[in-house]
Amino acid sequence: MNYYLGIDFGGTEIKIGIIDENGSIVTKDKYTTDTTKSGAEIVAHIADCAQELIGKSGIPKSAIKGAGIGSPGLLDPEKGLLKVVTNVPQLNGINFAEGIGRHLGFPAFLDNDVNAMTLGEFFFGAGKGFKHVIGLTLGTGVGGGIILDGKLYRGTSFTAGEIGHLSIDSNGLYCPCGNYGCLERYIGKDGIVTRFKAYQGKGIETGINDYLDNGEITPKAIAMAAANGDKLSVEVLTETGKILGIALASLTNVLNPEIFVIGGGIANAGDLILEPARHELIKRAYTIPAQAVKVVPAALKNDAGIVGSASIAVAKLVR
Amino acid sequence: MNYYLGIDFGGTEIKIGIIDENGSIVTKDKYTTDTTKSGAEIVAHIADCAQELIGKSGIPKSAIKGAGIGSPGLLDPEKGLLKVVTNVPQLNGINFAEGIGRHLGFPAFLDNDVNAMTLGEFFFGAGKGFKHVIGLTLGTGVGGGIILDGKLYRGTSFTAGEIGHLSIDSNGLYCPCGNYGCLERYIGKDGIVTRFKAYQGKGIETGINDYLDNGEITPKAIAMAAANGDKLSVEVLTETGKILGIALASLTNVLNPEIFVIGGGIANAGDLILEPARHELIKRAYTIPAQAVKVVPAALKNDAGIVGSASIAVAKLVR
Repeated sequence: MNYYLGIDFGGTEIKIGIIDENGSIVTKDKYTTDTTKSGAEIVAHIADCAQELIGKSGIPKSAIKGAGIGSPGLLDPEKGLLKVVTNVPQLNGINFAEGIGRHLGFPAFLDNDVNAMTLGEFFFGAGKGFKHVIGLTLGTGVGGGIILDGKLYRGTSFTAGEIGHLSIDSNGLYCPCGNYGCLERYIGKDGIVTRFKAYQGKGIETGINDYLDNGEITPKAIAMAAANGDKLSVEVLTETGKILGIALASLTNVLNPEIFVIGGGIANAGDLILEPARHELIKRAYTIPAQAVKVVPAALKNDAGIVGSASIAVAKLVR
Repeated sequence: MNYYLGIDFGGTEIKIGIIDENGSIVTKDKYTTDTTKSGAEIVAHIADCAQELIGKSGIPKSAIKGAGIGSPGLLDPEKGLLKVVTNVPQLNGINFAEGIGRHLGFPAFLDNDVNAMTLGEFFFGAGKGFKHVIGLTLGTGVGGGIILDGKLYRGTSFTAGEIGHLSIDSNGLYCPCGNYGCLERYIGKDGIVTRFKAYQGKGIETGINDYLDNGEITPKAIAMAAANGDKLSVEVLTETGKILGIALASLTNVLNPEIFVIGGGIANAGDLILEPARHELIKRAYTIPAQAVKVVPAALKNDAGIVGSASIAVAKLVR
């Protein structure tokens, strides 16, 4: 059996795990990113944590074929280079893949976290067995990863997949990216909460206060309230799904994918969002590609980060 | 030197030509589609025309490596099958590639006309030397072809590239496809003319009457008037370019292409449309992919159909 190491790197937390060739997690752990350290020290720390995890796992190092590192920020996956990591600027310009790989003694590969999630779903999750897979993560922002003909498509400057910045209304809400009507402005975290509060401001009744998330209205709180029958929360999630479906319809017409895999926090609301999304897609997209495409929730859930990151190595070494 | 036959099939006219391996047309001619004939007869007629053209060209048949057939309508490029040809329904269900290839004695390949145009520009035109090429044709409708990593991307059911049905305004103009705000509704032929007439209706002065196209206001007439300084015509083309740029910005964010190649009748207006499109793209898309992408006019012009169709064979046999 071959194994792959997955490093899910975040600005505050690092999750590391080992998966087998079927995508099952053998062992995993969480570590803290010490942002007071230098870039080189952070690299060494991550490698040390990984070494320790491998040691405790009992898996011979020779059975671990490679490591995949999923990271936020701007990066060059071909070189393995971090370019702009907003919260940990001392990593800017660091060759993360080479540095970590050298410490570990086996090849390491870097890609962005949304591509990692998409690869994880493609190899081991809801996208398994499909050729043209578009992964979306609905969280603070809205991200996307695109797999076409069984291969991750990265684009000219490795920024392909910015589905959150597909405009659904050229005269719509201003987006800090400079565009108007970006999908993310409507169904990213702030978009969902803003829409919720707008209805609330009109005096529509809601039981949201029983489900607040650390005292706040968040997509998670709205999803909890909706799951418990709060009508306004259901309405806002339905609307979220409809808006998602508008974007999926355009993507369906342009890319004719086989499957959309929807992940990220709010996607846990499942069919409360996905059913209206499917309905809107069918209504708006051309019949043939609309009938050819599925819209499904991500399957990997909490382990998406580790399995996805490890899948970056699987993509390089196996397929 | 190797040669390729290009068959640009249309509902009323068939253009056939032979290109050499550099994409230069050696010989070409036009024929009529006799829509009173059966499907099998039409196939035989096209093959006969091609045979005759080959005979007159003096090129030995053994030097012709294959034929590419570009066709409108719904088709299956893998099987070579025509599925729905709106104006010539007796061709529905006919295996065009196999039929024509058998008559000719060398392999023939079928694809849609917009993919053909995009392949032509990719091999021999404005997209030469680029890896990620998106071709758009602005005509009665707005079509698209997508080449990623040097390969035509067709999608799950061979309908990828319907860029005319990317919605730029989810609450916008109703489109007969069932969606709202489709790009084609604004910058397809009817969209351009409707916008022109709306301004005219408000009493804005124009010299368009000196440039009418068979007595009518058409995009061609508007382009002519604009080229001669008619202010309203320039304004409408500028607006057309801006709307095009809105869609290109979304495509740039999602697909991070290297180059957009813009063809079709109205694209002959050149920078009157492309300059505002570039400006809008830069304004709206993310900086990195926006700076990485070019927006250029198609290079093949009148021969786009023949060279593009022949390029379908080049894609299959050479690259």
